[in-house]
Amino acid sequence: MIGLVEVIEYVGTFAFAISGIRLAAKKDFDLFGAYVVGLVTAIGGGTIRDLCIDATPFWMQNANYLIWSGAALLFVMLFRKYLVRLNITFFIFDTIGLALFTVVGIEKTLAAGYDFWVAIVMGGITGAAGGVFRDIFINEIPLIFRKEIYAVACLIGGLVYYVCAKVGLDMIFVQLLSALSVALTRIVAVRYQIGLPHIKKEQDGDMNG
Amino acid sequence: MIGLVEVIEYVGTFAFAISGIRLAAKKDFDLFGAYVVGLVTAIGGGTIRDLCIDATPFWMQNANYLIWSGAALLFVMLFRKYLVRLNITFFIFDTIGLALFTVVGIEKTLAAGYDFWVAIVMGGITGAAGGVFRDIFINEIPLIFRKEIYAVACLIGGLVYYVCAKVGLDMIFVQLLSALSVALTRIVAVRYQIGLPHIKKEQDGDMNG
Amino acid sequence: MIGLVEVIEYVGTFAFAISGIRLAAKKDFDLFGAYVVGLVTAIGGGTIRDLCIDATPFWMQNANYLIWSGAALLFVMLFRKYLVRLNITFFIFDTIGLALFTVVGIEKTLAAGYDFWVAIVMGGITGAAGGVFRDIFINEIPLIFRKEIYAVACLIGGLVYYVCAKVGLDMIFVQLLSALSVALTRIVAVRYQIGLPHIKKEQDGDMNG
Repeated sequence: MIGLVEVIEYVGTFAFAISGIRLAAKKDFDLFGAYVVGLVTAIGGGTIRDLCIDATPFWMQNANYLIWSGAALLFVMLFRKYLVRLNITFFIFDTIGLALFTVVGIEKTLAAGYDFWVAIVMGGITGAAGGVFRDIFINEIPLIFRKEIYAVACLIGGLVYYVCAKVGLDMIFVQLLSALSVALTRIVAVRYQIGLPHIKKEQDGDMNG
Repeated sequence: MIGLVEVIEYVGTFAFAISGIRLAAKKDFDLFGAYVVGLVTAIGGGTIRDLCIDATPFWMQNANYLIWSGAALLFVMLFRKYLVRLNITFFIFDTIGLALFTVVGIEKTLAAGYDFWVAIVMGGITGAAGGVFRDIFINEIPLIFRKEIYAVACLIGGLVYYVCAKVGLDMIFVQLLSALSVALTRIVAVRYQIGLPHIKKEQDGDMNG
Repeated sequence: MIGLVEVIEYVGTFAFAISGIRLAAKKDFDLFGAYVVGLVTAIGGGTIRDLCIDATPFWMQNANYLIWSGAALLFVMLFRKYLVRLNITFFIFDTIGLALFTVVGIEKTLAAGYDFWVAIVMGGITGAAGGVFRDIFINEIPLIFRKEIYAVACLIGGLVYYVCAKVGLDMIFVQLLSALSVALTRIVAVRYQIGLPHIKKEQDGDMNG
C-alpha cells in the first residue's frame, strides 16, 4: 500500500510542477526559473504545513520531489508541442495529486497531535498553497482566489475525512472517500463551470489598512 | 483582565480581516479568496513571529481567529453599502488592533527569552506583516512601504515599552503606555497626513542585484 | 579567521541591502519601506534556510545585520548621485557576499545534520532567496528567474564544495574553492552576458492549475 501512495505522490508532484513550469514558460522564465516555479508549486504547500507543525519540510528528507520536478521540466521542454492536447491528462493528474496531498496533509497534522479543524486547514494548505506561491512568483493574482473551486475541494475533503473517521470507518475507506470527495468536487466544478460567488464591489472604497 | 485583552484581540482580528476582505472584493476575488486574504491580513504577522521564535502559530491553538475572520466576511457581504460610512470606525478598530498586536508580539517574544531589540522587531512584524501579505496577494506594492506611518508606530510603541519597563513601571502601565503610543502615533500621522520622507531617485539606475 | 568571515558577511549584507534599497527607491518607497526591502534582501535567504533546518533565524542573535542594513540606507541617501558610478564596486561586493552566503548556508545545513544535497539547495536559498523577496515586494517578477546566472552560481559552488570535501581537501581550501567558483561563475556570466536558455512558448496555453 505504501508503494501506491508514493507513486500517487510523485504523479501529483509531477503534475503540479508541470502547471508551474508551463505558466513560467509563458512569462519567459529561463530554465532555472521555470524549475524553481515548478518545484515550489509542487512542494510549497507541504512546506508551509511542515513549518507550522514544526516538522522538517518533507522534501528535505527525500530527493524524489526535486527529481520529479526536474523530470517535469524535461517533459515540458521535450513535448512542448503536444502539451495542449494533454490538458485533460494533466487535469486528471493534477486532481489526483490534489486529492492525495490533501489526505496526506490531514494525516500528518493529526499525527502531530493537532485538532481536527487544524488538520482540515492544513489539508487545504498542503493542496492549494503551492499554487499561490506559483502565481506570486509569476506576478499574477492567485488563480484560486478568483476562479476555481480548488482549496474549497480540499476543505470538503477534510470534512468528509472528519465525518468518516468519527463514524468509525476503516482508515483505508476514510482516506479513499476523502480523496474521492476532493477529486469529485473539483471535477464537477470544472465540468459545469461552477464557481463561488464574488462580493459585489462598494461604490467607493477609500480605505486605510 | 485576560477577558479584556481577548476582546480587544478579536476586535483587532475583525478589523484587520475587514481591511483585507474589502481590498480583495475590489479586485474581484471570490468568497473563498476574500476570506483567505482577510484571514492572512489578520494572522499573517503573528504567524511569522511565531515561526521565528519557534512557537506554534497562535491561530492553530484557538479557532476564534478563523471564526472572527469569517464574521468579517459575513459583515462585509451584509453591510457592503454602509461600509464607506463606517471608515472612521474601522480606522479606530484597526488602530486598537495594531496597538494590541504590537504589545502582544513584544511580550510573547520577551517571554520566549529573546533580547529587547528582537522583541521590538517582532512587535512590528506582528502588527504590520499581515498587511504586507494582503498587498502581495492582491498584487499591489505593500501600502506600508510607500504611504503610511504604520510599522513605524509599532516600533515607537516598542521603544516606549522598553523605556517604561527599564524605569520599572508596573507591567499594566508599561502595556498601556506602549499601546497608547502606537495608537497615538498612527492617529496623529493619519490626521495630519504625516508620512516618512522618500529617497530621491537616481538619474539612471542600471543595477545588478 | 573568524574575524575575516564576519567582515565579509557584513560587506555582503551591506551590498545586498544596497541593491534592495536602490530598487525600492526607484519605486518611490518611503525610508521605512526602503529599509525593509534592503533588510529582507540581505537576510531573507538565510531566514528561510534557518526556518527549514529548525534553527533560530541568524539575524535574531546578532543585531549587526539590522545595523548594516541601516548603514546601507544612510549610504544610499547620502551618496545617491555617485551610486551609478559605483555600480562595479557594488557588483564586486554583491558577488563576494553571494559567494560567502552560499558557503555559510552549506556549512550551517551540514552542521545541522542534513545530507549534502540538502546543504547545496540551502546554499542556493541562502544566496538567492533574498533577491526573490526583494522583487516580490517591489511587485516585479524575480530577476533571477529570467535573466541572471545567480542561483546557478550558488549551486555550482555547492557542487565544488561537495567534490572538494569528498576528495579530502583541508576545510579552508574547500571553503575558498567553493566561494571562488560561485564568484567566478557569476563574474564570467555577467561579463560575457551568458544566460540560461528559456523554454519556448506553447502556441496556446489554456491550463488549469
